[in-house]
Amino acid sequence: MNFASDTTAPAHPKVIEAIAAANDGPAASYGADETTARVRALLSNVFETEDFEFWICASGTASNALALSVMCSSVGAIACHEEAHIERDERGAPEFFTGGAKLRLLSGAVARIDEDTLRLALAKNDPGFVHETPLETLSLTNLTECGTAYSSETVSHYAALAKSAGLNVHLDGARLANALVSTGASPAQMTWQAGIDVLTLGLTKTGAIGCEIIVLFGEMRNQFDVLKARAKRSGHMPPKMRFLAAQAVAMLGDGLWLDLAAHANQKARQLADLLCAHEGVRLAYPTDGNEVFAILPEPMESLIRSGGVRCYPWPGGSYRFVTHWATPDRDLDAMRDLLAKT
Amino acid sequence: MNFASDTTAPAHPKVIEAIAAANDGPAASYGADETTARVRALLSNVFETEDFEFWICASGTASNALALSVMCSSVGAIACHEEAHIERDERGAPEFFTGGAKLRLLSGAVARIDEDTLRLALAKNDPGFVHETPLETLSLTNLTECGTAYSSETVSHYAALAKSAGLNVHLDGARLANALVSTGASPAQMTWQAGIDVLTLGLTKTGAIGCEIIVLFGEMRNQFDVLKARAKRSGHMPPKMRFLAAQAVAMLGDGLWLDLAAHANQKARQLADLLCAHEGVRLAYPTDGNEVFAILPEPMESLIRSGGVRCYPWPGGSYRFVTHWATPDRDLDAMRDLLAKT
Amino acid sequence: MNFASDTTAPAHPKVIEAIAAANDGPAASYGADETTARVRALLSNVFETEDFEFWICASGTASNALALSVMCSSVGAIACHEEAHIERDERGAPEFFTGGAKLRLLSGAVARIDEDTLRLALAKNDPGFVHETPLETLSLTNLTECGTAYSSETVSHYAALAKSAGLNVHLDGARLANALVSTGASPAQMTWQAGIDVLTLGLTKTGAIGCEIIVLFGEMRNQFDVLKARAKRSGHMPPKMRFLAAQAVAMLGDGLWLDLAAHANQKARQLADLLCAHEGVRLAYPTDGNEVFAILPEPMESLIRSGGVRCYPWPGGSYRFVTHWATPDRDLDAMRDLLAKT
Amino acid sequence: MNFASDTTAPAHPKVIEAIAAANDGPAASYGADETTARVRALLSNVFETEDFEFWICASGTASNALALSVMCSSVGAIACHEEAHIERDERGAPEFFTGGAKLRLLSGAVARIDEDTLRLALAKNDPGFVHETPLETLSLTNLTECGTAYSSETVSHYAALAKSAGLNVHLDGARLANALVSTGASPAQMTWQAGIDVLTLGLTKTGAIGCEIIVLFGEMRNQFDVLKARAKRSGHMPPKMRFLAAQAVAMLGDGLWLDLAAHANQKARQLADLLCAHEGVRLAYPTDGNEVFAILPEPMESLIRSGGVRCYPWPGGSYRFVTHWATPDRDLDAMRDLLAKT
Repeated sequence: MNFASDTTAPAHPKVIEAIAAANDGPAASYGADETTARVRALLSNVFETEDFEFWICASGTASNALALSVMCSSVGAIACHEEAHIERDERGAPEFFTGGAKLRLLSGAVARIDEDTLRLALAKNDPGFVHETPLETLSLTNLTECGTAYSSETVSHYAALAKSAGLNVHLDGARLANALVSTGASPAQMTWQAGIDVLTLGLTKTGAIGCEIIVLFGEMRNQFDVLKARAKRSGHMPPKMRFLAAQAVAMLGDGLWLDLAAHANQKARQLADLLCAHEGVRLAYPTDGNEVFAILPEPMESLIRSGGVRCYPWPGGSYRFVTHWATPDRDLDAMRDLLAKT
Repeated sequence: MNFASDTTAPAHPKVIEAIAAANDGPAASYGADETTARVRALLSNVFETEDFEFWICASGTASNALALSVMCSSVGAIACHEEAHIERDERGAPEFFTGGAKLRLLSGAVARIDEDTLRLALAKNDPGFVHETPLETLSLTNLTECGTAYSSETVSHYAALAKSAGLNVHLDGARLANALVSTGASPAQMTWQAGIDVLTLGLTKTGAIGCEIIVLFGEMRNQFDVLKARAKRSGHMPPKMRFLAAQAVAMLGDGLWLDLAAHANQKARQLADLLCAHEGVRLAYPTDGNEVFAILPEPMESLIRSGGVRCYPWPGGSYRFVTHWATPDRDLDAMRDLLAKT
Repeated sequence: MNFASDTTAPAHPKVIEAIAAANDGPAASYGADETTARVRALLSNVFETEDFEFWICASGTASNALALSVMCSSVGAIACHEEAHIERDERGAPEFFTGGAKLRLLSGAVARIDEDTLRLALAKNDPGFVHETPLETLSLTNLTECGTAYSSETVSHYAALAKSAGLNVHLDGARLANALVSTGASPAQMTWQAGIDVLTLGLTKTGAIGCEIIVLFGEMRNQFDVLKARAKRSGHMPPKMRFLAAQAVAMLGDGLWLDLAAHANQKARQLADLLCAHEGVRLAYPTDGNEVFAILPEPMESLIRSGGVRCYPWPGGSYRFVTHWATPDRDLDAMRDLLAKT
Repeated sequence: MNFASDTTAPAHPKVIEAIAAANDGPAASYGADETTARVRALLSNVFETEDFEFWICASGTASNALALSVMCSSVGAIACHEEAHIERDERGAPEFFTGGAKLRLLSGAVARIDEDTLRLALAKNDPGFVHETPLETLSLTNLTECGTAYSSETVSHYAALAKSAGLNVHLDGARLANALVSTGASPAQMTWQAGIDVLTLGLTKTGAIGCEIIVLFGEMRNQFDVLKARAKRSGHMPPKMRFLAAQAVAMLGDGLWLDLAAHANQKARQLADLLCAHEGVRLAYPTDGNEVFAILPEPMESLIRSGGVRCYPWPGGSYRFVTHWATPDRDLDAMRDLLAKT
């Protein structure tokens, strides 16, 4: 019963197959290969636009930080939720890649930025006041760190607020597929049509080995050369790019990424139901994606610890259970059996 | 006839196989998995010591820069050859990762630092003079950028000079296997026994997809926690580390890395002989590894360009031809046939 | 009626005299002059110890950031109050000088860090968890941004808590003199005896032109060479150091700095009494130093604006009035007359 | 006989007087004061243009680094002479302020960049090649580190070459006054009319306490807000700016800066003549300003050392003698008497 993280999952077999298939004779280095060219075509199809540039990166942390480094200057600030991955789990990567920009932390229930808090932060923002670091970027996360989703309408609304205050907007989509499946929004609706300027599209947690795509939409394409220079200097321009590209091709082709996310979301839903069937259990946050955060009565906590269930206690008192593309029914069955002992 | 670069080569099949084999069920994230544990055992065997720590990284640029960032402070300088990869081909990665350290460029024939130049730089170094940035680290490259090797005796001698001046010593081993095969030195002799404090062990150009290992020897183990923190913040701590580790296991197991380098070196030797059999051709630098730098007479240049030979014109007037683990005999045969037309 | 800021005040005449006196023939550059030597003797006397090193700097922002840059690594974090000057008013200087460290913001009434909040932050701190940036430094401010003082007992208590969690402790003393006068603590009691490792001793707001002293106590003396290197590279190593030193000599000699702070505090006290004598006025925070934060009834706000009183509206709804060494009685008299019109 | 450095000189009395005069009652902080406004008018007059913005800074190192930080991105490079102050004497300040840009070192006799070397560097520059750091800025120094001057024609010629290659052009004018007096060029001719985009105008070595002015000409005015933000975060935005401004007013008013430089140059000329009157002495570089670099016969070296002459041995085997506004005739007389003993 392993609900520790979607990063403990293996890669989907098609990803491995695609890597093996890409390993065919010589190929041009640094993204000039044919596999990388196929990624462009797939992204164009997925996002229903040609108005973008992209860069593939093995790391989610680096993808976020690289994206932010072309959006926010070293003397600017990035507004994000106080529980955002870029604040909590990236060891200062945004500060490092931007050359010292600040994160401005906004609160809000279930890891979604509260609208009033956002409005207040934007209203107070004064780029002309040299002593304080002004906001230049709003970074949203969807799926959030609490496993909740923003609807595309909310993303669009928040992006509009940010833009009217002169900010650009980043979307950390480490689990974007889960959010898309959950909300029913299309990739285009959730991103550029909603006003997202730069997207970090995660495929690692969805089922790849390590594959994230930074997508620059619209005018942000102007930053593509700088993005490449920053990718190069930070060690995120692999000579054998085709193997990163192969992962993207496997995941985006035939909608595999969304199918895998749908499976993960379904398993999370089932797990949540299974937990909530027991008295005293309640969900800390809505289960919008592939993460269940449950507050457990004391006896169940003991049972879970002693029963070999891999999951994490979470700040706030809940336990986090993560499902993924490969979560087997037998793990849910075993969980049901275990809980029956309470 | 593709002699463009060893990074255009595919990965060795055993690397792909190892990745597929590692894709077996859940595994702990961030290097706590079993495959990564096997890398430690292999490294211990390869380097004949337990006195080391290591970190695996997909990028050569990042591996060098991460290594240097725990060796040289932000107010220090790194001495290297003026043609070193860290100076010429990494877009300022050392400056970025160290937080603004400087590179001090030393000259020397065939991309090997001249001993007198090194001695002079060390003699002039004055850490007590606050205005000028003092040297803290010497970075050697073996194989060099001109495809030449340092003997382990020279590495040892230079390291001793550097240490007596208070510097620590880094070895950029992007093509270390080629240098080892060429010189006959053992990995231990060429590294910690010669006084190398931190090694960047490249396996990508040797035949992996993207796999470099930073090895901290001896007292530099104290920097391991900082190295991990810096790896994390720069996006070089992949959650699914097992897939990097699998590449290392495939390459280091049964000495595959050295066998592949031996093949590459042999093909380079054959190519060099083949070129030099023609009047007017001379080698710009000795062919100690898998790179041939040849100065060609005018008609041969035209022939090569028109004949579809992939190679690069190099600063100084030569052409660079790179061989690798997969360089087929047919490419050499075709080259022989082509040159016969002159 | 100018209560805008203590930085709008002129310098004390003795400061100007000292500068003129220092302008006597040639003097060694970069702090090797006799005036700088006198500062050492004065500091030794003021702090009752020889166990320190110091650096003089014209800028308070730089002094704080330089101090923090030798206390906290680029992959660490600094805990401070959410209203601290280093967070609010220094345009990311700590992030810049440290190479990307983070500030962790702690709350607490009247700009004093709440003890429970501090304890919680320290308890959660886990330097072994590589993903999150661990606290390395606690930065206190005395006088705080709300014009309140920490007692030396509280400083000592907080420093002990921080140290037991492995942190070192910085004191931003931009208005230290005001806090000393207010609390009755000696400079030694408020700093190294209380566990402060590095002090930023501000003299600018007290009455100098621009003169702050970074004092490294005890083991932090080991960081002195690095501090100088960082001062040099950031442009805070003036060749004609004697003119900075002269300001320090004037201020620290004969206790002038404390006398001037006592005057400023007294004027603030008088202003606070004068305001509070009117119905509806209440102080937002205790007046421990030279800053009065008063919440004013509507008619009084209008009167102050129309009457030419220079002061700042402050976040939280109060008005900030700052007094200083040169605040004349006539400004208080004028204020009394003005308020009499309500 | 103190020829150690122009930074060992006292400030000119008018500078002290101006500071005392500025110390008159309250004044707006951060450059909004009247004295700073007078600097603008004076600069406009000196440079015969209104098309500029400026920032006053106490530090030459910071002024250069701040200027470069708005001219060159963190992924770009700055071309300068290999002996330039920004390379040799600023402890990595340009790398620090730019966030990791590189310096590309050009050679040339007497610390003047060789034209062919410059042309070659520009010709090789390829901003589209992502692996190598491209040049974005050319930094010239006038007076050079060898005390030689560029004519305004050469500055203009070099600037045109740089601009045709897409670079912008910086002038380090730490001793600009000496170069102006020496060449007869006007400030306008030597700067914006010659194509200089950003000037660091030094007044410290000329006779101020610590006062340098960054002047952004023409389109570089667009960088003024970023310059201020960077000045703030690096601690170069003093609240009591009026005291920096007062120095500038004293120096620029009535052409004092040029008069003082003329005196310094004259004394250098006299010293050079005096030295060269002795057999075996020859100048290492032309004496274009206030620095004499002389290669001395052995007996004279001993005499100078034993005779209490303060001067520095210089790389290349010469001795550097620096004169300044306050160099007294008695020092020259004493020198003449001393040398008579050989």
